[in-house]
Amino acid sequence: MSAPSILALSGGVGGAKLADGLLHAAGRGRLTVAVNTGDDFTHLGLHISPDIDTALYTLADLANPETGWGRRNETWTFMDALARLGGEIWFRLGDGDLATHVERTRRLAAGEPLSAIVADFAHRLGIEADIVPMSDQPLRTRVRTDEGVFDFQDYFVRQQCRPVTRAIEFVFAPDTRPCAALERALADETLGAIVICPSNPYLSIAPILAVPGLRTLLRARGVPIVAVSPLVGGAAVKGPTAKIMTELGVPVSADEIVRHYGDLLDGFVLDARDAHLREQLALPVHVTDTLMLTPADRVRVAHETLAFTATLSHRS
Amino acid sequence: MSAPSILALSGGVGGAKLADGLLHAAGRGRLTVAVNTGDDFTHLGLHISPDIDTALYTLADLANPETGWGRRNETWTFMDALARLGGEIWFRLGDGDLATHVERTRRLAAGEPLSAIVADFAHRLGIEADIVPMSDQPLRTRVRTDEGVFDFQDYFVRQQCRPVTRAIEFVFAPDTRPCAALERALADETLGAIVICPSNPYLSIAPILAVPGLRTLLRARGVPIVAVSPLVGGAAVKGPTAKIMTELGVPVSADEIVRHYGDLLDGFVLDARDAHLREQLALPVHVTDTLMLTPADRVRVAHETLAFTATLSHRS
Repeated sequence: MSAPSILALSGGVGGAKLADGLLHAAGRGRLTVAVNTGDDFTHLGLHISPDIDTALYTLADLANPETGWGRRNETWTFMDALARLGGEIWFRLGDGDLATHVERTRRLAAGEPLSAIVADFAHRLGIEADIVPMSDQPLRTRVRTDEGVFDFQDYFVRQQCRPVTRAIEFVFAPDTRPCAALERALADETLGAIVICPSNPYLSIAPILAVPGLRTLLRARGVPIVAVSPLVGGAAVKGPTAKIMTELGVPVSADEIVRHYGDLLDGFVLDARDAHLREQLALPVHVTDTLMLTPADRVRVAHETLAFTATLSHRS
Repeated sequence: MSAPSILALSGGVGGAKLADGLLHAAGRGRLTVAVNTGDDFTHLGLHISPDIDTALYTLADLANPETGWGRRNETWTFMDALARLGGEIWFRLGDGDLATHVERTRRLAAGEPLSAIVADFAHRLGIEADIVPMSDQPLRTRVRTDEGVFDFQDYFVRQQCRPVTRAIEFVFAPDTRPCAALERALADETLGAIVICPSNPYLSIAPILAVPGLRTLLRARGVPIVAVSPLVGGAAVKGPTAKIMTELGVPVSADEIVRHYGDLLDGFVLDARDAHLREQLALPVHVTDTLMLTPADRVRVAHETLAFTATLSHRS
């Protein structure tokens, strides 16, 4: 009998790190990563999928460990030349990274769905997991702030998260649905667990769960659903999670994240630095060091998370 | 009184070298270069203008002297990454060169005419000449061969000029016309001469002359029109001129090029190695070493060409 397959939901850096660990822990061909595309945007005429690319580069071992985005051994000749021509340079595109955007844009324009392009890229990069956009239809994250409404990357990169967040909004067409590869992963009878990676619940996981029908499909599947906390000692490891929680008026605390996910969860992986919150959580909890600084950390957190899910039965 | 202004017609490498010499010989702000856009094509979803870019890079002193195309100090990270993603790599796009294509494509999609974009690029690159596409409407060069009809770059780069040429064709819409900046340069009352640069007459200059109305405008202007021979000792310095002439059944000889330009010319600059043809040419001829190996060669050939034009009066 083959090992159980795993479905992970992921945003950017932190989520991709756990997904990388899950690939090693679950075994090749046993992992599907459903990735947030709410941050996708068109820039310089190119379709850019920041979280998809972070997943691709991380699982292909091409990611830049220093920046948390983009590729290793990158060059920047394009940006230098673009600056000289007066082009927009607030979003930094490395020369190698650009190939992903140019080729994806070309194939989208030729009529291929995003999921088919990403699957082919993952295959060519030697990734032995399925990386799937949450949807082939556009669902875009907008940040409503005291200075106006911004596309996510505009808020995140150009505005550097400076404006005060009032609300997060998702804009999508009525026919938006989970992509077919994600539905297939959910229908796989060997599916053993669903893992919500340590990505921003409001900015990175919420858009995935906003895809019409997906939350219901996840709940109805009957396998344990576990989230790994994105907070370590009451603070986000990276990114604007804490700032945004504060501005939305919710306490920056792991128990608030459990409350946010609500009846979706069967269990929660809590960072050891937040172990004092354990008693306040009305669901099974595994406590461990969730900080993933090394590749070995990723595999350890993944193994512990999968072992934890194996002790749970779905509450539905 | 200001120096006379000069209009040059140019294709790629050889033409751009003389245009660079003419910029120095005519003085800043006194040169307009009308460039062939028959080779323009869409590749990877990007609008590429090979001859325009050769002119921009050559006059901005950014050109790669070793390859004859592309930029100096170029990096190739994009192509390497694109190859890994399975993208088309037969047309080599350097990382810095790519900025030109991405930004031009973005601005074209935003509705700007090609001529406005090229003018802005030239200004930003510090070029003190006007570089203008022959037309803002697409006029495309196709090569009819024994193996089918090819877009020019497909024939030139992907097929490496291997198929046997049967005919050169130009495809364009009825409303195609010279771009406004070219018409302005022709209307300039200080215009002193029109120079046809040593580019391929059949592949690079013919598309310019195929723009409806342009040949008549050139002839009617009443200033001397001089062509600089693209042949040196009965051979093309670079590119497929000789091969194509042979396949089209015309002798590879400077007198054949004079015959090809016909009544357009008031004079011809002949390479010293072809001086024996002088007697066969029924128009004023200046004989000199036209090979431009160094920047000083460019300026010398340009100065001699302009001095020669000053001795001519238009025959109309």
